[in-house]
Amino acid sequence: MPRWEVGSEERLKKATMELFAEQGVEATSVVEIAKRAGVTTRTFFRYFPDKRDVLFADAESLLEALVGRILEADVSRPFPAVIEVLAGFDWSAMGWQSQRRRHAIIAANPELHERDLMKRDAIASAFTGALRQRGVEAGTAQLASRVGSQVFFTAYEKWLTAEDETSLASVIEATLECFDALVAIRSAYST
Amino acid sequence: MPRWEVGSEERLKKATMELFAEQGVEATSVVEIAKRAGVTTRTFFRYFPDKRDVLFADAESLLEALVGRILEADVSRPFPAVIEVLAGFDWSAMGWQSQRRRHAIIAANPELHERDLMKRDAIASAFTGALRQRGVEAGTAQLASRVGSQVFFTAYEKWLTAEDETSLASVIEATLECFDALVAIRSAYST
Repeated sequence: MPRWEVGSEERLKKATMELFAEQGVEATSVVEIAKRAGVTTRTFFRYFPDKRDVLFADAESLLEALVGRILEADVSRPFPAVIEVLAGFDWSAMGWQSQRRRHAIIAANPELHERDLMKRDAIASAFTGALRQRGVEAGTAQLASRVGSQVFFTAYEKWLTAEDETSLASVIEATLECFDALVAIRSAYST
Repeated sequence: MPRWEVGSEERLKKATMELFAEQGVEATSVVEIAKRAGVTTRTFFRYFPDKRDVLFADAESLLEALVGRILEADVSRPFPAVIEVLAGFDWSAMGWQSQRRRHAIIAANPELHERDLMKRDAIASAFTGALRQRGVEAGTAQLASRVGSQVFFTAYEKWLTAEDETSLASVIEATLECFDALVAIRSAYST
């Protein structure tokens, strides 16, 4: 890669997020993004198939990292394992403000929301596969992965829509408390 | 509606499902569907915007029916309320074989799978709204709706992929037992 391209990808990501936030996804063109990032349109397409892909550029490496942790986790208790792996990832490192902005852009756009749902579904499916690989029974693996990821992403969204930055761990703790209360109520239903 | 059109919609649905199952979604044209249903292509488009929409034709009325039940349910225990409303719907009336075939078509096609995920997401969101309308706290409403619908649809899929037809109620019961075991394990994690 020629030296002048160093940092292009990060600059393109930053420019895309800024423009999406300022003027919306539809109104933003690749030409504008490239211009703000100080690169050519051709450079943009060297990194991303289209403007929407910029928001999901890290999805694959995130999925790989998460699955890698499931493969190494203590899965004798699959549900806490799923929660721990998701909660244990260093989300703060990506920046609360930047994820908050990304979340707001996605929530406002049905097409992006659809894509985001698919990515979360892919995480739950990959977790199911990894848990099965670790010897967890199929039905248990699927339920732990799906419910665990729903609980985590519900907390994650709450973290990103809070007025001020708090610790993700505290939001997860509160969400799990709410979950425990809901489930305790369910036990009453069984009897 | 002229008399000769009576039953067209049902015949179109049946023809679409048959052709999708026989030769795949991509290879099936609206012209073929209309021909097998014994109607004109124009009649097809009077009912459906495109061939894929046929599979989701009942989604809106299903959503309305389910939300109606949440609005009338005892929501003092939101999680069992969500499960009960979903489990209490008469899924068998739509035919196990026909839903099984529909599920297999959707599972084999990423675009349809994406659309199906969106429909389920819409159900969980509408449930959240209905529970809030009934006075349930926002976070609790969201968690109960999301987790409850995940648990239900996991059971529903298991029901449709089983080798032989069993009662949906028994599959839900087994799934809830698995869920309880997972969650009991989670409590150990909290301590």
